[in-house]
Amino acid sequence: MAENLMQEANKLTVLVNPKLTEAAALIEKAFVQRRTLIVAGKCHVNYAGRANSTLELGERLLIIKEDGSLLVHRPVGYEPVNWQPAGSVFHVQSKGDSIEVHAVRQKPRESVRVTFDEVFMVSALSLRDSGEFLLHASEDDMHRAILLKPSLLEEGFKPISYEKKVEPGFVDVYGVDKNGKLVVVEVKRNTAGKEAVLQLAKYIDAIKSKANRELRGVLAAPSLGKDVQRLLVTLGLEFKALDPKKCAEVLKKAETTKLEAFFNEKSQ
Amino acid sequence: MAENLMQEANKLTVLVNPKLTEAAALIEKAFVQRRTLIVAGKCHVNYAGRANSTLELGERLLIIKEDGSLLVHRPVGYEPVNWQPAGSVFHVQSKGDSIEVHAVRQKPRESVRVTFDEVFMVSALSLRDSGEFLLHASEDDMHRAILLKPSLLEEGFKPISYEKKVEPGFVDVYGVDKNGKLVVVEVKRNTAGKEAVLQLAKYIDAIKSKANRELRGVLAAPSLGKDVQRLLVTLGLEFKALDPKKCAEVLKKAETTKLEAFFNEKSQ
Repeated sequence: MAENLMQEANKLTVLVNPKLTEAAALIEKAFVQRRTLIVAGKCHVNYAGRANSTLELGERLLIIKEDGSLLVHRPVGYEPVNWQPAGSVFHVQSKGDSIEVHAVRQKPRESVRVTFDEVFMVSALSLRDSGEFLLHASEDDMHRAILLKPSLLEEGFKPISYEKKVEPGFVDVYGVDKNGKLVVVEVKRNTAGKEAVLQLAKYIDAIKSKANRELRGVLAAPSLGKDVQRLLVTLGLEFKALDPKKCAEVLKKAETTKLEAFFNEKSQ
Repeated sequence: MAENLMQEANKLTVLVNPKLTEAAALIEKAFVQRRTLIVAGKCHVNYAGRANSTLELGERLLIIKEDGSLLVHRPVGYEPVNWQPAGSVFHVQSKGDSIEVHAVRQKPRESVRVTFDEVFMVSALSLRDSGEFLLHASEDDMHRAILLKPSLLEEGFKPISYEKKVEPGFVDVYGVDKNGKLVVVEVKRNTAGKEAVLQLAKYIDAIKSKANRELRGVLAAPSLGKDVQRLLVTLGLEFKALDPKKCAEVLKKAETTKLEAFFNEKSQ
């Protein structure tokens, strides 16, 4: 049960239950050294910028990253209650019975003041991170993305069904274009080759006999094999470039609607 | 330069440079006690859900809040690289040379696996926060919000100018409605009284003599004083309820466009 103790290691400096002046000193040092800073404590927050807000006293995490981005997190909710993008200038000031961390941005002029009455922990970390972030989507994800956002395929496209059974198999996505023509879509996750073109042609043939409307066959894939372009044209089919990553983003967007709504509605 | 040391205090337990098994034990304990957990370390992340993603090895912060929301933060950027809203179920598992924190949600089915090869710090905090978040807007903020989002006033409203000089003063917002009528808007931050109504009437009189179009006078304020409703009607003026908080949100929304764009485009 040690109190008021500093621990230093290569990666980090941690202060537990520091005096306010000690906390201020480490915060200042973290700013100078451009380290990632975490301050846990009892604080209130004032924001002034395009709008103004006040967050009453409570126990929270303040995170300031090496690029100057700032987050204030309450103990619940995945959204920050206050935040600033990179590019703020920071100051910390001891004020007797409190310390004030002040972040100022110039364009637009914005100011966040986080005033701590108590500090439970200060942690200054040197983090190295060059790992890549990779987004994936399966063919099934790509189908669902088209249903969620049909303009991925083309403007005015309206899906009717999904994995529709059409002998000899299942049509990936089936819909109507802005001119009322039926559209049969075959989706491929990778470069579409001869096989994909012939598969689509089969579906078109099978549906043509039943449909009394004009029919288009669209092969949607990240790219088209060079040698199949002529075959595609000969068979009267079309190619639409569809990026699996873009599809993954559309799906994830649906998921993050709540988060966006938060940033729209509650904001700072 | 103490290493591998645990500190306990009322509010928090902190482990610096723990062994992986010690880190896992404190993480587990934090889940059980529903404390706010911060893990700083070298990790890779796998997400599977509506889309799939991989984040390669790097040094980051994992934050899991008492409500089960999860954030993975890289050392730059105000946006999390991975996140989950509240409601996940968590497990931590030691795997010899790594520990895996696994978060699973059911609706929709989503899974985030954060695998740490090294842990620099684990901090488990009990934070109490009932402070209210209050958003403010000045009268000037309210003017700007109408310019940014004219539908705050009414559908089809198009602002022409802002703080337009019209003897005996300045018209707050001046525009055209969907029927082509000129609209003079007087904005008040608080309940609009007799004075506000008479001020608007003066502007209308001053402009009427010059304009050759139909003219409407609109008083926009959070509420209208009971005793001035009759005066307003007599003078042929209108009242529109305009919430300063809503205006502040519109302004802040403009500010957070980049953040929204991030969540739309990069997502998990």
